[in-house]
Amino acid sequence: MKIALSQLNFIVGDLNGNCIKIIDAINQAKQQQCHLIVFSELSICGYAPQDLLDYNNFIEQCEQKVLEVAKTCIGIHAIVGAPTRNPNPTTEGKNLYNSALVLNEGKIVDTYNKGLLPNYDVFDEYRYFESAKKFNCVTINNTKIALTVCEDIWDVEEDLMYTVSPLDELTKEKPQLIINISASPFNYNHLQNRANMLARNNAKYKLPILYVNQVGCNTELIFDGGTMAFNNAGKKVLQANYYEEDFSVLEFKNNDIIGSLTAEKPIEKVENIYKALVYAVQDYFAKTGFTKAVIGLSGGVDSALTACIAVDALGKENVLGILMPSEFSSDHSVKDAEDLAKNLGCDYHILPIKENYESLRKTLAPLYKDLPFNVAEENLQARIRGILVMGVSNKFGHILLNTTNKSEAAVGYGTLYGDMCGGIAVLADVYKTEIYEVCNYVNKDKIRIPVNTLTKAPSAELRPNQKDSDSLPEYDLLDAILFQYIENIKTATEIIKMGYDEKTVTRVVRLINLNEYKRKQMAPVLRVSPKAFGYGRRMPIVGKY
Amino acid sequence: MKIALSQLNFIVGDLNGNCIKIIDAINQAKQQQCHLIVFSELSICGYAPQDLLDYNNFIEQCEQKVLEVAKTCIGIHAIVGAPTRNPNPTTEGKNLYNSALVLNEGKIVDTYNKGLLPNYDVFDEYRYFESAKKFNCVTINNTKIALTVCEDIWDVEEDLMYTVSPLDELTKEKPQLIINISASPFNYNHLQNRANMLARNNAKYKLPILYVNQVGCNTELIFDGGTMAFNNAGKKVLQANYYEEDFSVLEFKNNDIIGSLTAEKPIEKVENIYKALVYAVQDYFAKTGFTKAVIGLSGGVDSALTACIAVDALGKENVLGILMPSEFSSDHSVKDAEDLAKNLGCDYHILPIKENYESLRKTLAPLYKDLPFNVAEENLQARIRGILVMGVSNKFGHILLNTTNKSEAAVGYGTLYGDMCGGIAVLADVYKTEIYEVCNYVNKDKIRIPVNTLTKAPSAELRPNQKDSDSLPEYDLLDAILFQYIENIKTATEIIKMGYDEKTVTRVVRLINLNEYKRKQMAPVLRVSPKAFGYGRRMPIVGKY
Repeated sequence: MKIALSQLNFIVGDLNGNCIKIIDAINQAKQQQCHLIVFSELSICGYAPQDLLDYNNFIEQCEQKVLEVAKTCIGIHAIVGAPTRNPNPTTEGKNLYNSALVLNEGKIVDTYNKGLLPNYDVFDEYRYFESAKKFNCVTINNTKIALTVCEDIWDVEEDLMYTVSPLDELTKEKPQLIINISASPFNYNHLQNRANMLARNNAKYKLPILYVNQVGCNTELIFDGGTMAFNNAGKKVLQANYYEEDFSVLEFKNNDIIGSLTAEKPIEKVENIYKALVYAVQDYFAKTGFTKAVIGLSGGVDSALTACIAVDALGKENVLGILMPSEFSSDHSVKDAEDLAKNLGCDYHILPIKENYESLRKTLAPLYKDLPFNVAEENLQARIRGILVMGVSNKFGHILLNTTNKSEAAVGYGTLYGDMCGGIAVLADVYKTEIYEVCNYVNKDKIRIPVNTLTKAPSAELRPNQKDSDSLPEYDLLDAILFQYIENIKTATEIIKMGYDEKTVTRVVRLINLNEYKRKQMAPVLRVSPKAFGYGRRMPIVGKY
Repeated sequence: MKIALSQLNFIVGDLNGNCIKIIDAINQAKQQQCHLIVFSELSICGYAPQDLLDYNNFIEQCEQKVLEVAKTCIGIHAIVGAPTRNPNPTTEGKNLYNSALVLNEGKIVDTYNKGLLPNYDVFDEYRYFESAKKFNCVTINNTKIALTVCEDIWDVEEDLMYTVSPLDELTKEKPQLIINISASPFNYNHLQNRANMLARNNAKYKLPILYVNQVGCNTELIFDGGTMAFNNAGKKVLQANYYEEDFSVLEFKNNDIIGSLTAEKPIEKVENIYKALVYAVQDYFAKTGFTKAVIGLSGGVDSALTACIAVDALGKENVLGILMPSEFSSDHSVKDAEDLAKNLGCDYHILPIKENYESLRKTLAPLYKDLPFNVAEENLQARIRGILVMGVSNKFGHILLNTTNKSEAAVGYGTLYGDMCGGIAVLADVYKTEIYEVCNYVNKDKIRIPVNTLTKAPSAELRPNQKDSDSLPEYDLLDAILFQYIENIKTATEIIKMGYDEKTVTRVVRLINLNEYKRKQMAPVLRVSPKAFGYGRRMPIVGKY
């Protein structure tokens, strides 16, 4: 049996567009004499459709589209993902299932409903779906297949969260093959996690596995693709591309997947983060219909790295830098930012903010009187910059890229409605220490980010001779504490027990918690770590903790 | 048996503070010779603790606090709500249960685990908790009690979402009394919903019911309290206060709750919305440690109503109005805003923005050149106002109250980082047509909101002679369409079929969807309707629908 694996970039909610893509791939598979083509999870509507699933009419439209696709499955089977209705919601829970549908000759010939519904971090599946309690294999072309949906095969992991194992049930029927349709978002650990998980399933059930993943970016989530196949012996025999659509064909014969793969070079973490972010920016613009980006260039590392990502994603002709020096800006700030723009070959403008600052201070003078300069004046400058770049955005239809890094987003070292503005926060899931690592990766063949940007001490330059280290611990220490609190889910008490300075930990954790309100209003954060700010981390704004 | 019902305002995560309150109430109940005192759901940590529950150390601290409380339960039983550990997470799902614990003589003497976990709208309980599969009554003072947690008794409603009915199971053991501990947030329908639900349970099971609800506000959610008791005959015999802490004592005797209640006057929707919003603002400030609010006063209804709410919540001496006329402001704007401030007795300042606007336009001139005035210049004005009120906020420690209404939040008729700024969006769950109704309620005894504010045509005044109706349908029509799409979950196709104009519906729905990105970055919205923007409505930003 010839099987095609189709890794497509779906647009959430775009049922027409998604089905055109699906039908095109089916036709391609037919041309290559395939017996079966497999698409990713919820392929009809794109993952994650979120509360669109609450619209009954949306479900009706999905049902119609599934039948349209089925009509093209003449002489071929297709496995697509779609929401389907629970036939007995009054006694059996939620209205919907997250299903893998087997289509053939105009009909849905078999249905598998997802059993394990992820409902943690960025996942909300139990918000919409009932979990299946019974599991049966499907038979296609005389081959018995343990068909599963994403999370269903992740229960080999250590931190079990479910009461059943779909594969334990399915393998009782002695299937010949495992197929998993997924929508598994990227994080820098997840390529390895997925390979490990597939290897564990392979070792446990002694069956070949086909794994089809979604590709493409939906707001915060980056789906990196990387569709894979493992043979009976646990050897990876297919690795589809990352960060682009792909179409692969495999032969299933004598109860095994035929194929071989030359040894792959593992992708380093920093390279992966960079590629994921470039892809995310590219896809965000493509899907929202914009082509041009505007970035405030400060001469610092964060805006420099954001600009590199934007240039690689959109082309240098589509990236505009705005330099907005104030009276507190150092000479090198403008020079470093100009050097960057020249290195990247993108256009830039210098808009000094001194007069705007004086004008606004004058307006506020009847209230401010002779109160001393403080954070209010610092914020004023940051917000003038926010107004100016948004002014460019609104006038010329550029999307403002936010340059906040994860360390400053964590401790609130940024101005709401100032440097926290933007359509998407490109770097807000990358710690400051990681930013430098990614910058070095960017510069590995050629200096794109000016050396001075990388070697000078980080500064917000909102008052004379300001350094980040005046207000914050050194970034090595800060990021280590942040990582324990955010990624490792350790409380201040536990972090102090690890040997970190009590006063520093208490202060840092307090800052993280206090600044929940700022992060609530910041641009959506592109997720590259296992625990990003935004949709996957839901902490109380009003609280005492 | 004398039973105390304790309706308390907990702070999320403040285990020490919450336990002090709980212990105080236990002591009060002891003084009144009560045999049992009942607290609301997750009372130890406050509802909703959100991802604090992911911190193992947080759970440990909750466990310690439960034991501390138990030690004070000498000669009395207490029912408290707390997260507890699932003893068998590897085979029985998630790590935690949402439990009602019976405490007595220093120990946890009985545990009931919640069976029905709401995971829709603003609720995320399956993110953290496993649902109980077995249900047993608890016995306190020889009385067999069907103890339940919130959602467990809501399965008498029409839209069933679960596979079991805890009360069907529990009543097999022939209990004498139902107790429900809740954290049920307010919406303008929910008082009636709760009473109906309790009546249905009462009719179905023929048992008296004690219902204890949390009171207090946590970011977007307003818990209104309103603890109740129904006797065997289905008569309400206790109605605790709304919007404040309360402590009630009842007698349970001869298998019934003794008591009587004089007929209550039902609270009208607009009155309830107003009271809920006043309480929410008051509690937001109390819990975040702020006392003073700043509001941009435009002379329009939204800022006028926000100011009334703020004055009633915080006192007139704690509310500062900022009037920021531009060259496009009409004469009456300033006068109407001044009249309002005078009516309310709060301080105000006039900060004209003309010079700031000119200064910023001059800075942008090298880019804008002689391009015509458009939405960019409108946004510029709104953002200058945003800067100025945030400048007051930052300098003087006032919280900026956002005045956006639900209609404009829906269609994106507002400027991000401009009039969409603020610590909390007071009115963003109230449609423009409802705003007028609430204003009339506010003015019912005395004119507080100037008549001209209520009678003039709404305008953003960002260009000459602008009216809202230039860009939007009349609010009656707009709000009707919004309500169908947002509250009633109907698609454009369905709304058109109801008879609304196709072009208008298509445009309005498109605007709602396109502006998801703005709402992502707006201030948290105080929820008063069954479907508010924010945490309870999760729609894709990048998508095509």
